Amino acid sequence: MPPLAATVSRKIGRALGEYSMLADGDKVLVAVSGGKDSLVLLHYLVNKRKHLPVDYSLKALHLNTDVSPHGHWKEFTKAVAGLGVELDSIDVSVVSRLVPGRKMNCYWCSTQKRGELLAYALANGFTKIALGHHMDDILETFLMNMMYKSELSTMLPVFTYDKYPCTIIRPLALVTEREILQVAEELGYRGITDVCSCSGRTKRAEVKKSLDYLCREGDFVRDAIYKAMGNVKSRYLPN
Amino acid sequence: MPPLAATVSRKIGRALGEYSMLADGDKVLVAVSGGKDSLVLLHYLVNKRKHLPVDYSLKALHLNTDVSPHGHWKEFTKAVAGLGVELDSIDVSVVSRLVPGRKMNCYWCSTQKRGELLAYALANGFTKIALGHHMDDILETFLMNMMYKSELSTMLPVFTYDKYPCTIIRPLALVTEREILQVAEELGYRGITDVCSCSGRTKRAEVKKSLDYLCREGDFVRDAIYKAMGNVKSRYLPN
Repeated sequence: MPPLAATVSRKIGRALGEYSMLADGDKVLVAVSGGKDSLVLLHYLVNKRKHLPVDYSLKALHLNTDVSPHGHWKEFTKAVAGLGVELDSIDVSVVSRLVPGRKMNCYWCSTQKRGELLAYALANGFTKIALGHHMDDILETFLMNMMYKSELSTMLPVFTYDKYPCTIIRPLALVTEREILQVAEELGYRGITDVCSCSGRTKRAEVKKSLDYLCREGDFVRDAIYKAMGNVKSRYLPN
Repeated sequence: MPPLAATVSRKIGRALGEYSMLADGDKVLVAVSGGKDSLVLLHYLVNKRKHLPVDYSLKALHLNTDVSPHGHWKEFTKAVAGLGVELDSIDVSVVSRLVPGRKMNCYWCSTQKRGELLAYALANGFTKIALGHHMDDILETFLMNMMYKSELSTMLPVFTYDKYPCTIIRPLALVTEREILQVAEELGYRGITDVCSCSGRTKRAEVKKSLDYLCREGDFVRDAIYKAMGNVKSRYLPN
C-alpha cells in the first residue's frame, strides 16, 4: 500500500473505532456526490469490510440535484462498479423547491438533500448513513458557526437522531482535505472531480481561507483545533 | 464627551454591570503597565465612580520588571496624578528568577507578575484587582489556547479565586484594541506607549494576525466570536 494510502486507512480506522461508527449487521448507505471524496470514502469502506471484525453491508446513493454538474459521471459509475458496490440515484430538484424570490444557498441545498437521504434510508431499512465530510469540513463548520452564528458547535463525526432509527457517520472525520486529494490520485481516481456550481463563491470558501491562515504553521494546528472542540473548559469561558 | 469616548464608556459600563464586577465597599487595585491601556482603564474607573451607584476606592500599582522599558514613565505618573489616584510601584525581577538555561517567555513573565500582584493585594486588603486586558486580548487567548493547547478556554472578564478573598476583573473586556488606541488619543494620552521588550516577536503577535484575518469582514466577527465563547452547544461538539 502506498504510504499516504496507509496513513489515510489508519485515520479512517481510528475514526471508526474511537467513535464506534459501525456495529454488526449495519446496513450502510453511502451518500456519493460523484467526486473524489465519495470515491475515497467508498474505497476504504469496501476494503475495511475485509479486515474489520464487524459485519456490515454497503450501498451507494447519489442525489441528483439541479445544481451539481456531472462532468465525470461515467468514470464515477465505472469506479463504483469496480468496487463492487450497488449504486442508486434519485432526483432532487433543489432549485425548483425554492420559495419564490429566495436565492439558492448552501444551507437550503444541504437540508433538502439531507431530508431525501434520510427518507430513502428509512424506507429501505438502512441503519447508518455515511457522509464524505472530512476534517477540514468539520473545522470550517466550527469556524463558520463561531464567526457567523455566535456559537461553539460543528457537525459531528457521529450524529444520532432522537426520532429516527438511523445514524449519520463521517468516517473521514480525521482525514484532511489535502490527504484526500492526494490519496485519490494514488488510488487512481485521477481527475474525478465533482464541483458544485456554487463552489468558490460561498461563505465556506472564505472560511476555508481563514482555516488555512490559522494553520499556516503546519497541520499540527488543524489537529489541535480538532482536539480543542472536544476539550471545553467551561470554568474558563465567559457566560 | 467625544463620540468614541462615549462608546467606550458605555461598553465599560456594560461589562461592569453584566459581569457584576464591582460591589459596594470594594477596594480596587488597578494594575498599570505604564501604557495607554492602563491609563484608559484608570480614566474610566475614576470617572465612573462619580456616576455609578456603587462605592469603591482605587489605587494603582505598577510592577516594575526588568523586561519593560519605561520610555514615558514621567508622563505616565503625571497622568495618574492628574486623575487623583495614588500610585505605588514594586520591583519584580522576572529575568533573574528564571531557572538557569530557560529562556524568557510571556507565560513565565505573566505568572511571576500575577503572583506579586496577588500577594500585594492580599497583604493590603484589596478585594478586586483590575487588569487592562481588552477584547482582543481575550479573543487572542481563546485562539492561542485552541491552536496550541487544544482546549476551548480563555481569560475571563471576572475570575474568582477559590482560595483567596480577591477577584480579578477586566473592565475593558468588551472594548477592542483599536477603540482603546483611538480613545487614548481623544482623551489626550497621546504617545504614552509602554511596549514590552518582547513585543512583536511572540506567539501572541502571530495570533493577533490570525484574529485580524478572521475579522477581515468587520468588527461584527469579533463580537460574534466573543459571544460564541459563552454559547457552547455541547450536543454539537465531538468528544
